Amino acid sequence: MADLDALMAHGARMAHIASETAMLFFRGELGVDFKADLSPVTQADKAVEAAIRAYLSDHFPDHGIFGEEEGRTGGDQAQLWVIDPIDGTRSFLSGHPLFGFLLAHLVDGAPQLGVIAMPALGEVFVAGRGASARLNGAPIQSSDVARLDQAILYVNEGDKLFRDHSAIFGRLMSSGQTRRFAYDCYPHALLAAGHVDAVVDYDLQPYDFLALAPIIEAAGGVVTDWQGQPLHLGSSGAIVSAATPELHRELLGVLNG
Amino acid sequence: MADLDALMAHGARMAHIASETAMLFFRGELGVDFKADLSPVTQADKAVEAAIRAYLSDHFPDHGIFGEEEGRTGGDQAQLWVIDPIDGTRSFLSGHPLFGFLLAHLVDGAPQLGVIAMPALGEVFVAGRGASARLNGAPIQSSDVARLDQAILYVNEGDKLFRDHSAIFGRLMSSGQTRRFAYDCYPHALLAAGHVDAVVDYDLQPYDFLALAPIIEAAGGVVTDWQGQPLHLGSSGAIVSAATPELHRELLGVLNG
Repeated sequence: MADLDALMAHGARMAHIASETAMLFFRGELGVDFKADLSPVTQADKAVEAAIRAYLSDHFPDHGIFGEEEGRTGGDQAQLWVIDPIDGTRSFLSGHPLFGFLLAHLVDGAPQLGVIAMPALGEVFVAGRGASARLNGAPIQSSDVARLDQAILYVNEGDKLFRDHSAIFGRLMSSGQTRRFAYDCYPHALLAAGHVDAVVDYDLQPYDFLALAPIIEAAGGVVTDWQGQPLHLGSSGAIVSAATPELHRELLGVLNG
Repeated sequence: MADLDALMAHGARMAHIASETAMLFFRGELGVDFKADLSPVTQADKAVEAAIRAYLSDHFPDHGIFGEEEGRTGGDQAQLWVIDPIDGTRSFLSGHPLFGFLLAHLVDGAPQLGVIAMPALGEVFVAGRGASARLNGAPIQSSDVARLDQAILYVNEGDKLFRDHSAIFGRLMSSGQTRRFAYDCYPHALLAAGHVDAVVDYDLQPYDFLALAPIIEAAGGVVTDWQGQPLHLGSSGAIVSAATPELHRELLGVLNG
């Protein structure tokens, strides 16, 4: 693996490129079509992924790439870059500023570098395993909240949870000191920054969650799947983030009834 | 009533004052206490309301004021300013940038001027009845979406709706082309700006909804309570906003089963 500081600097540069590209399209006239699963695909998704693929091909010609739009291509799949060009396409399409750009670098399937950029907010979160987590260059740290009844709990993809897992949904609706529905990467980033204490998320793709793990963990938090297993390329996409190990254990109990 | 253009200019100035004040406290060390209903009150709420009350006392010494923190005070209650210093205190407390500042001017209980400021986004929405709605000075307009199955639907206060009105909650979860949970004023502002097509909201106080009506209506949309009645100081706090009258009628049908 390349030097971690160098990788983090590359990550920050790609966050900048992705943000500039996405903002060209935000709240503008979009060319929208629909995939089989009705997830909207925009020109912005395609343009951002193309820009990041070009950067990676230039700087890491031997590495593999896995992007939401174009899938897996070329190179060494043991050194894999995973791209979500617009995380929160539905937010993006409704003029809502909490969409993100996600980038992870995986070694043998495990995320080593994570980047979350919030183009409309001008915020970039970067961390590598063994380095500190940073928001626009400044170190961040998760909170020390260890009890669910004292926690600010965010529940992502609440409508899908209600549809697919009504018992879990019901238990979550009586958990936490404060509860909010939300979507996509930003609640996890707020957890890494110490503002949110717990996030339950559901029905994610690998490009939705792999970038989160190095950032949350470098900030002192814990993120796993609902069974408590570390996140990797093959994880299920039902995940739970917590500011502390104690809070994480309590949430696993709520999820697994 | 004072000249509408002059009122709108005052509204924009107060939006600026409120935003500057709120941002002094955002993501900082907050002195938080809890009201009887567990709604968090921050120093920021108190500071913003005090700043706006000072401005109003200076420029409109004869008018009444109704603020979330200090309640109703002084002056002519037929010329009433209604202030929500921080709409979305729970967002504010969790470092989440989608909190707002709301200001309405009422004549005989009906809102004539509305101001929505989003301090962390740098966005200010202003409208008066009979004038155009504006976002940072540029005219905005609601969408022309007339069918619920083509609409981007935002559901605010989803956890309270689930708890109090599970049948309505269930019907909403199968409504709209795209559906999102959200909170507070911003989805209504995005509706006025043409990005979101419908918003169902619940359990609001007068200072939460009175500022929305002039902006949504001046932008071409419709907002009423769940019975289809115009919003005024005594409305119930269960409201529905839509980009078009047709969409609004269809949503009233969903809400009233």
